[in-house]
Amino acid sequence: MKILLVGGTGTIGGAVAEALSAEHEVIVASRSSEVKVDLSDKASIAAMFETVGKVDAIVSAAGSGAFGPLEALSDEDFAFGLGNKFMGQANLVRLGQDYLNDGGQFVLTSGIMAEHPMPASVLITTLNCAVQGFASAAALGLPRGLKLNVVSPPLVLETAIKFGWGEQGMPAADAAQLYVKALASEGKGEVIRPA
Amino acid sequence: MKILLVGGTGTIGGAVAEALSAEHEVIVASRSSEVKVDLSDKASIAAMFETVGKVDAIVSAAGSGAFGPLEALSDEDFAFGLGNKFMGQANLVRLGQDYLNDGGQFVLTSGIMAEHPMPASVLITTLNCAVQGFASAAALGLPRGLKLNVVSPPLVLETAIKFGWGEQGMPAADAAQLYVKALASEGKGEVIRPA
Repeated sequence: MKILLVGGTGTIGGAVAEALSAEHEVIVASRSSEVKVDLSDKASIAAMFETVGKVDAIVSAAGSGAFGPLEALSDEDFAFGLGNKFMGQANLVRLGQDYLNDGGQFVLTSGIMAEHPMPASVLITTLNCAVQGFASAAALGLPRGLKLNVVSPPLVLETAIKFGWGEQGMPAADAAQLYVKALASEGKGEVIRPA
Repeated sequence: MKILLVGGTGTIGGAVAEALSAEHEVIVASRSSEVKVDLSDKASIAAMFETVGKVDAIVSAAGSGAFGPLEALSDEDFAFGLGNKFMGQANLVRLGQDYLNDGGQFVLTSGIMAEHPMPASVLITTLNCAVQGFASAAALGLPRGLKLNVVSPPLVLETAIKFGWGEQGMPAADAAQLYVKALASEGKGEVIRPA
């Protein structure tokens, strides 16, 4: 398959790029790749699709939102998170349909804090739930046999070490296999989580 | 209790106002009430709280978003829905904390399409899931014993008749009892649904 991977340079995204490259042609788009995209900017998403053209799958391992308790979150934090992790991924689906070959697939990313909230995850939990809700309904109405799934990655070991949380979490290479699994599943808005 | 009911003039909201008035002092705020509020406008929410002052509960039966399949939804539909049903209710919690007496309660509204998506509910399902996600995390970090729950109302009979969908759904008066139940529950971000 020819796969457009949005956000293929982050901790998880880099591992997804490696995992998918074993069997597929992978085009990576990110803020720093040769194919550039800013998920917060719909025009930038449209330009990315124009550059890349038709593909068999559009995989998003992208999307940011602020981590912190409710009282620490600003109006701008909410606007950025909703515009980036939620609306950016929704726009990948809204605009990307025209660039997917028949039967092609979308894979979006939510995250474990959808179902494991904590006080400081109030925005992240919101965004993860919004992405999963969007996918559950959007997947039912796609044309031409297009499929849509969501991967909900767990805490990743490399991230835990980077933030000084100790050696916990799943290695990014294992989390990347959730994206391989998502591409092989039915595509009716399922959420793919660690077993 | 002294209860501020936001959106107390809609189909469900009117029934909630009636149900809560049996035992409580209820102040209704809406776009058309004496106490005015536009949920899309944070400054309007702040002004409402200034007008009303301290209360024991802030109940939202408000929030709108467009119904329709993905291809029919505009950028403006997404922006309005996210700004109104989600961000408006989030702002009730962000700003309303200072107006709740110790141990006071928030009740927000999501909706049955959170868990029962259909192609035309893509935005509504998104917003309902976002509200529930927000509540699940925000409830864990509230100060002074403040509580937060969500009511997920089913399709209401009066709405079904109004839209020509036939005689289906739960009478609004019964749906209103979910809000009575929410005010009596633990307040840790639970979603109160029909039994």
